[in-house]
Amino acid sequence: MELKRWPRKNDPESIRARQDALGLNGDVTAIDLAPFANANEMLTGAAVVPVSVVGPVPVELGEYELEEPFGRLVETGRAREEVCVPLAHTEGGLSASLYRGARAAAESGGFRTYVIRDRITRASCFVCKSTEEAVQLARFLDAHVAEMRRWLAERPEDWISSYAKLREVETHVVGPMCHVMWAFTTGDACGPNMMTRNAYALNTGYVMEHAPVKAERAILEANMGGDKKPSHRYFERGGHGKTVLAEATLTDEAVRRVLRTTIDDLLDLSFAGTHGAVASGMQSVAFTPASAIAAIFAATGQDLGMVGTSSMAHGTGRRVEAGLHVAIRLPGLEVATVGGGTSYPHARRWLELLGCAGSGKVYRFAQVVAAATLALEISASAAMATSGSENFFRAHHERGSAR
Amino acid sequence: MELKRWPRKNDPESIRARQDALGLNGDVTAIDLAPFANANEMLTGAAVVPVSVVGPVPVELGEYELEEPFGRLVETGRAREEVCVPLAHTEGGLSASLYRGARAAAESGGFRTYVIRDRITRASCFVCKSTEEAVQLARFLDAHVAEMRRWLAERPEDWISSYAKLREVETHVVGPMCHVMWAFTTGDACGPNMMTRNAYALNTGYVMEHAPVKAERAILEANMGGDKKPSHRYFERGGHGKTVLAEATLTDEAVRRVLRTTIDDLLDLSFAGTHGAVASGMQSVAFTPASAIAAIFAATGQDLGMVGTSSMAHGTGRRVEAGLHVAIRLPGLEVATVGGGTSYPHARRWLELLGCAGSGKVYRFAQVVAAATLALEISASAAMATSGSENFFRAHHERGSAR
Amino acid sequence: MELKRWPRKNDPESIRARQDALGLNGDVTAIDLAPFANANEMLTGAAVVPVSVVGPVPVELGEYELEEPFGRLVETGRAREEVCVPLAHTEGGLSASLYRGARAAAESGGFRTYVIRDRITRASCFVCKSTEEAVQLARFLDAHVAEMRRWLAERPEDWISSYAKLREVETHVVGPMCHVMWAFTTGDACGPNMMTRNAYALNTGYVMEHAPVKAERAILEANMGGDKKPSHRYFERGGHGKTVLAEATLTDEAVRRVLRTTIDDLLDLSFAGTHGAVASGMQSVAFTPASAIAAIFAATGQDLGMVGTSSMAHGTGRRVEAGLHVAIRLPGLEVATVGGGTSYPHARRWLELLGCAGSGKVYRFAQVVAAATLALEISASAAMATSGSENFFRAHHERGSAR
Amino acid sequence: MELKRWPRKNDPESIRARQDALGLNGDVTAIDLAPFANANEMLTGAAVVPVSVVGPVPVELGEYELEEPFGRLVETGRAREEVCVPLAHTEGGLSASLYRGARAAAESGGFRTYVIRDRITRASCFVCKSTEEAVQLARFLDAHVAEMRRWLAERPEDWISSYAKLREVETHVVGPMCHVMWAFTTGDACGPNMMTRNAYALNTGYVMEHAPVKAERAILEANMGGDKKPSHRYFERGGHGKTVLAEATLTDEAVRRVLRTTIDDLLDLSFAGTHGAVASGMQSVAFTPASAIAAIFAATGQDLGMVGTSSMAHGTGRRVEAGLHVAIRLPGLEVATVGGGTSYPHARRWLELLGCAGSGKVYRFAQVVAAATLALEISASAAMATSGSENFFRAHHERGSAR
Repeated sequence: MELKRWPRKNDPESIRARQDALGLNGDVTAIDLAPFANANEMLTGAAVVPVSVVGPVPVELGEYELEEPFGRLVETGRAREEVCVPLAHTEGGLSASLYRGARAAAESGGFRTYVIRDRITRASCFVCKSTEEAVQLARFLDAHVAEMRRWLAERPEDWISSYAKLREVETHVVGPMCHVMWAFTTGDACGPNMMTRNAYALNTGYVMEHAPVKAERAILEANMGGDKKPSHRYFERGGHGKTVLAEATLTDEAVRRVLRTTIDDLLDLSFAGTHGAVASGMQSVAFTPASAIAAIFAATGQDLGMVGTSSMAHGTGRRVEAGLHVAIRLPGLEVATVGGGTSYPHARRWLELLGCAGSGKVYRFAQVVAAATLALEISASAAMATSGSENFFRAHHERGSAR
Repeated sequence: MELKRWPRKNDPESIRARQDALGLNGDVTAIDLAPFANANEMLTGAAVVPVSVVGPVPVELGEYELEEPFGRLVETGRAREEVCVPLAHTEGGLSASLYRGARAAAESGGFRTYVIRDRITRASCFVCKSTEEAVQLARFLDAHVAEMRRWLAERPEDWISSYAKLREVETHVVGPMCHVMWAFTTGDACGPNMMTRNAYALNTGYVMEHAPVKAERAILEANMGGDKKPSHRYFERGGHGKTVLAEATLTDEAVRRVLRTTIDDLLDLSFAGTHGAVASGMQSVAFTPASAIAAIFAATGQDLGMVGTSSMAHGTGRRVEAGLHVAIRLPGLEVATVGGGTSYPHARRWLELLGCAGSGKVYRFAQVVAAATLALEISASAAMATSGSENFFRAHHERGSAR
Repeated sequence: MELKRWPRKNDPESIRARQDALGLNGDVTAIDLAPFANANEMLTGAAVVPVSVVGPVPVELGEYELEEPFGRLVETGRAREEVCVPLAHTEGGLSASLYRGARAAAESGGFRTYVIRDRITRASCFVCKSTEEAVQLARFLDAHVAEMRRWLAERPEDWISSYAKLREVETHVVGPMCHVMWAFTTGDACGPNMMTRNAYALNTGYVMEHAPVKAERAILEANMGGDKKPSHRYFERGGHGKTVLAEATLTDEAVRRVLRTTIDDLLDLSFAGTHGAVASGMQSVAFTPASAIAAIFAATGQDLGMVGTSSMAHGTGRRVEAGLHVAIRLPGLEVATVGGGTSYPHARRWLELLGCAGSGKVYRFAQVVAAATLALEISASAAMATSGSENFFRAHHERGSAR
Repeated sequence: MELKRWPRKNDPESIRARQDALGLNGDVTAIDLAPFANANEMLTGAAVVPVSVVGPVPVELGEYELEEPFGRLVETGRAREEVCVPLAHTEGGLSASLYRGARAAAESGGFRTYVIRDRITRASCFVCKSTEEAVQLARFLDAHVAEMRRWLAERPEDWISSYAKLREVETHVVGPMCHVMWAFTTGDACGPNMMTRNAYALNTGYVMEHAPVKAERAILEANMGGDKKPSHRYFERGGHGKTVLAEATLTDEAVRRVLRTTIDDLLDLSFAGTHGAVASGMQSVAFTPASAIAAIFAATGQDLGMVGTSSMAHGTGRRVEAGLHVAIRLPGLEVATVGGGTSYPHARRWLELLGCAGSGKVYRFAQVVAAATLALEISASAAMATSGSENFFRAHHERGSAR
């Protein structure tokens, strides 16, 4: 089939035409694509990832509300639960390992999680004639945050989202550029679309109209926004997703009996691993958070392009009286319980299993992800901490014996 | 169901028991799980991601062989092809955008791609009594690379992989630690399991037996290996996957007619975006490589936990006589055409569509991913480069109108 | 002389005793050390660095005041001046090059400079029993910034500085730690001593007394404060010194006649240099700011240990209608016009030459440093941008011919 | 005096004319400038920094030779010594603190130091028409390292330095650029001038003449060379100066009696400080290496613009049987014992005091700097590790009481 004639629509005939042209049949075309007709253009088939369910993961979750108008998170309650976590992946050993970490935590009083920040940022850039004008523009914006927040909230246009609320505005002048970080909250959605539209409204409707300086060029996003590329700004401060903390204090007994290592061995691994991270220029200090996060993201319809940024992590281990305190900080977990990929049937069902489908669930979901991530960190570290990392080797040995 | 009784096996009864216990049915349990019985523990259901197919993407691909024993890549030929790329995702607009970028390239002579390095690294760590001993160990290892390469190749043990060939050994002493970067090639597999086993063999069978210094502790991996966490080391040098380059020279005409912007506008965006990346501490300089890479990874059974590291990217744009030269460097694309998730039916079928299933295909596959990634970079940049980034806004407007 | 008997005082006899014991005489002991008796312990001699004076450097300087109580910088005026800059160094060519850059700017309308932020930060750390307690502490601190600002301002103790005013407090929880960034302004002093004392007062007198959580340990500084070690946090946001911008728009004529290159050549260099910076993991994007900054610091008694942090820089070049716009952002220029090394006779005299000695001069001084730094950037870049970088080679050739 | 008439020469009359024009007299013009006539252009006066001498610092030093032709460092002996270290600075407390750290080490068996790498790199850049050509150029260079090493060594031209020997060549292709890292050794000189000249020779005489690809532009340095700007590349791998390690194992007794803290307290500080470094995006993990390094550099005529890069540091602390093992890695200490600022009388005298003046002394000098740096790290850490960091506060209290 020629380039020009490649059908781009998603009606059943076009889908079938593409499948025929490519000679596709069997598994990849067997799944009913009707529910996905709006998911992407040139829809042709399906990918399937097997899902394991691991649990219970015991976790004390916080309940949170956003305070108006500044969007500070307020904790309104805490509750202890046990959740079963769906993991979509094909990495033998991962599910069993996460399960073992959860058991070690369970025997030690469980996980505790906290959400401390919620923002998503679109970083526009105004290219001016000079640094002087960029400084003037920055001063104007710094002085009009409240006005812009109100202006946006009062827009009647349909295409401007009322969910994406402007919270803070930060400017960064370099050369002739005034970068502007528009920080929003977007409810239970991840929010890239709605914040993009609202930032466009602010840029064209407010800044270009009211600022004392006329920028040569307004760019919706010029890479200070943290979108799908890890960066120190968002690693340290959050601002692209939920900033979530998870912790547990493992008892000597749980470390020995469930994890089959010792606290001293884990601390020695932590010493070597932390300095190895620094030596190689890792931004994260962690073991394998991306494995857990990718598996939950794939099961629950999150944006897989955000696996890298959502997996930025800062883990610690410290001996305390009761045993070993372990914790992880996920500064920018980009999760949603409504919109995007969460709307499709399979994803929705796995979110329901977690009690995380629909409105009002996003902070719960973020915390479950953090607890599961810490569970895997604990178990994978324990395997690595054994003498010569024998248990880590064994896990790889078993699952890789075919080659 | 209680924690203790959660069935962990993947026989049909156990799978069914878990589904019943969780009240799962309908879509997520409708897919036959038999082919996935070895994919993960506690298998319970499936996730489905819709796949669009975009193409043709015109690309001149290199053919490569590894030179023995040092593992240098030698280019043995080049051929021009057109490929259709499967993209598993639910991000409206992504497929259409990638398609537009491919068309712009098509009208400008197509993409050209190069693989310049192929390695996967396991970074073990020997914790010694002192820096003195760590230095001694490093000297010993630096002087015995050829011996260790041979020793490993001659191991008769079944569990030692003959595919994972030791190429270089680099040491890094800090404090009392001697980190050791074991750099392997692993054929068409991604290779984390096989390199783990071979590094374990080297650590316990060679280093701990033959080195003049007895380390207090051998750790298989202490975070200098670049596994699933982006780091400068692997961004700059590669060493965890394939280092792949893609380029195209867009004509003025293609930029104007297909991309609906101008070369000057694209260069201004590049200026702002590059400096925005620096200002926010991004390691990559790029637009949205993770979107393309995640979508191909999800379709073809690659490890989704590696989306972040595989998406490390360095993009450039420069005006040349013939138009705008655009290029991207992906230093560590962790792809496979055999093993892991590529073995399962759907993934295999999508790899076949690309002509990338099975042995001898991994360099081809890596190049197709790079070309597709650059296609999306081109088109997304063009949308952003329009006045006020109006076209980028429009794309988000259309797909986000529901909220 | 034995270790135990090494005299530590700085009376003339002790100084002489040390000189004798070490067999020192001639140049290094010829300078009268009396004025330096309080400068450091075990004073024994002097180092001398030759100073060149380069100028005039034409620069339009802003005048600034700190708004109470939040410490925002307000620009109260702008004035054009010509300054002569003292440079203490032994790097042949540096002074001539900086002079050439100043001439190019002079022919193009001169430099313009801006101070946009002024802070110095001491980052204390409270190590708690758990993440839970660290989060509670952070919430308490976030809610009591105004109280702490007032509490500190009202302290009657002599050792608490009234110059070091608390402006903002930021918390960062990771693991069981609550890092606390105490951001001060310190008038015309650099301020490390005074902010250290005031942070100690806050830690022991306020936090440990009033917080609802009793930390296990209070540490005055745990490396989030940006002290003498470059970091992304302070590169992006400033917070350790003055954030200063300098710009000039070079005419085609000045580039050609004074700098002996072309704007196109400079832009090509900028392209290669910016991407080279990214490729090698530089935080700065600049050419050689440390050369200018070290030379001014050495002449004027600034803390030479701060050369690295003060030289963090983000430079840009962009073609505009009037020629080439060049700019540099120095996010954390740690300068003083009172206190520390500025009090000693030579340093004071060089500050006087700049019109920057004493109170009320620090913003002026910061801007002069930025303009001089940009002057060197311009000229060094021009030498590098010539064909094959011939002019850069020539400069090194001439001064290095002896070897 | 007008710009045009500013005398640029360094004969006594020109110097005097400048001093008169600026109204300079007294201290800054009192020092005889004759020895400095070749140091810099427009020489006008002098800066003076007081020097304290601290010691003895007990250190076991390695002796090293460069193996031809690859430039590997070979250790030929080790010897224990006591050195007195000159420190030029005005930071009250610094000298006393360094002295205390040295005493703690002295009571614990002293320092041990190692040089593990010696290189200085000029990173040229060839901008080509396409990535294709840049890849071809890289292949050519990778295949001709031995030829280029020989070609350079055999050059008869006077301006090509025989001291700057080419050791390795590394290429890095991104976009249309082929960056080329020319790695030299430069004997006892720091070497920026000589490597610049030799890189120019290679670029223009070899590459542009013999390469199969004609680059559009050759740039001598495009920011991958690590010159005066800290970068991950040179932090991890060295390559710009000497890579030096220093260690000591502090006894419990020395920690308690000399440092007035405990090993547990120091380990807790290390925990908080290491994670604080990561959290704020520091590349180094250390306390205040720049203070020691700047002070020694200022006394001994090193390039003060290199304080930032030479102070990149990676420090560790770990409990071992004998007490607390502490170590520091300085990856790129840019020191010289001949050439540049070391030739002038004061600097030379202070180098002599260290036994480090002239040829064959540079590895000794590098190690002394590393030991002194570790001495200060130990003592400053100990002050910070006391309860509430009281002793750190006290040190700042005493020296800052005037304000």
